[in-house]
Amino acid sequence: MTKVIGHTPATNDQEHIPTIVCSACDIPDRTAAILGYGPDPLPAMRRALGRLERGGAEVIAIPCNTAHVWHAALQAKSSAQILHIVDAVADQLEPALGAGPIGLLATTGTVEARLYPQRLASRGIDCIAPEPVRQTQIMRAIALVKAGGVTSAHSILAAEATRLAERGCRAVVMACTEIPIALADQTLPVELIDATDALARACVEACLGFRPIPGARRC
Amino acid sequence: MTKVIGHTPATNDQEHIPTIVCSACDIPDRTAAILGYGPDPLPAMRRALGRLERGGAEVIAIPCNTAHVWHAALQAKSSAQILHIVDAVADQLEPALGAGPIGLLATTGTVEARLYPQRLASRGIDCIAPEPVRQTQIMRAIALVKAGGVTSAHSILAAEATRLAERGCRAVVMACTEIPIALADQTLPVELIDATDALARACVEACLGFRPIPGARRC
Repeated sequence: MTKVIGHTPATNDQEHIPTIVCSACDIPDRTAAILGYGPDPLPAMRRALGRLERGGAEVIAIPCNTAHVWHAALQAKSSAQILHIVDAVADQLEPALGAGPIGLLATTGTVEARLYPQRLASRGIDCIAPEPVRQTQIMRAIALVKAGGVTSAHSILAAEATRLAERGCRAVVMACTEIPIALADQTLPVELIDATDALARACVEACLGFRPIPGARRC
Repeated sequence: MTKVIGHTPATNDQEHIPTIVCSACDIPDRTAAILGYGPDPLPAMRRALGRLERGGAEVIAIPCNTAHVWHAALQAKSSAQILHIVDAVADQLEPALGAGPIGLLATTGTVEARLYPQRLASRGIDCIAPEPVRQTQIMRAIALVKAGGVTSAHSILAAEATRLAERGCRAVVMACTEIPIALADQTLPVELIDATDALARACVEACLGFRPIPGARRC
């Protein structure tokens, strides 16, 4: 929400985008469901979308990358336009297309479901994830951020982003909401793309008709 | 919303308070209505509350001090519990009751409606506002924050808080949402009370059954 507000060129309350936010923290763990050891989160996600729709939402953004594994199922039952976080990232990547693949820092659920590689391939963008043995560390860092341990998470995530750079990645997507909380504003040998920031810019574009420039937040 | 999350002792998504936020930026200017030169904001406020109620909200917090001039009118038509920001501030002030009045930095609407002095008097707390001639500067600072001019707003607000301290105030309430955005984390000769932070702690108390300690935010 802070990112949407930051990208909105408003000078008073009334120029901001009317927004309803459902902090649907009761949705079961998405990665656990994808890996087959947790309950299906789709019913709780549909309830959360219903709250937004009853509140009058016309454009919906879901600031959880892993939840996009269910994007098609959610869109099929919703009359609102549900933005797709991978498309928002691709829109940001394309103008800067250089050599080398895009690296992915994400939950094990997002990685195992091949959410990013499949959708980015249709835009001609290659995408690689850390080696499976490293993925445990990334999940540990994400859990640390959820519990307030931002500093410990940073050193894990900075090391993994550096490894992806060493494997030839021209940019690394921070493809889990918790990752930019720990990794933002750091000097690393690779460009970092914040997926939720790209989604926030897609919100402004969908609601106000123009796409804000990356990095040009006002606050 | 950041303040509510910061005061919640959660270690994973599911331990957070399920929340719906309506960023109701289309509500007409509250101060203009109180001073008699703007439209009545009550119908738009009722529509925003309706969105929250249809989404299932049971406890409602309104993070706009001036809007509390209409608290009784809103509560009369709502089945949800609407917290009162002045009560949240009073709950924070009482344990530290010392000599001298409380100073008020607020919109001209909040000051003219006597929102704080009236409600704090029933708790035995005296409250003084800046002299009317200073109030124009405070409104200028609030408008600057709404437009992203946080640094310019800070020097105005710091000077006004210092003036209230010189008039004998033992604490100054930052009684407009924009003020702590510009004035927080500054070293001034008087204790600053953040009204929206007090309201966030009242939310945690209403939803989880205990009141977080002032200043003990996790993030």
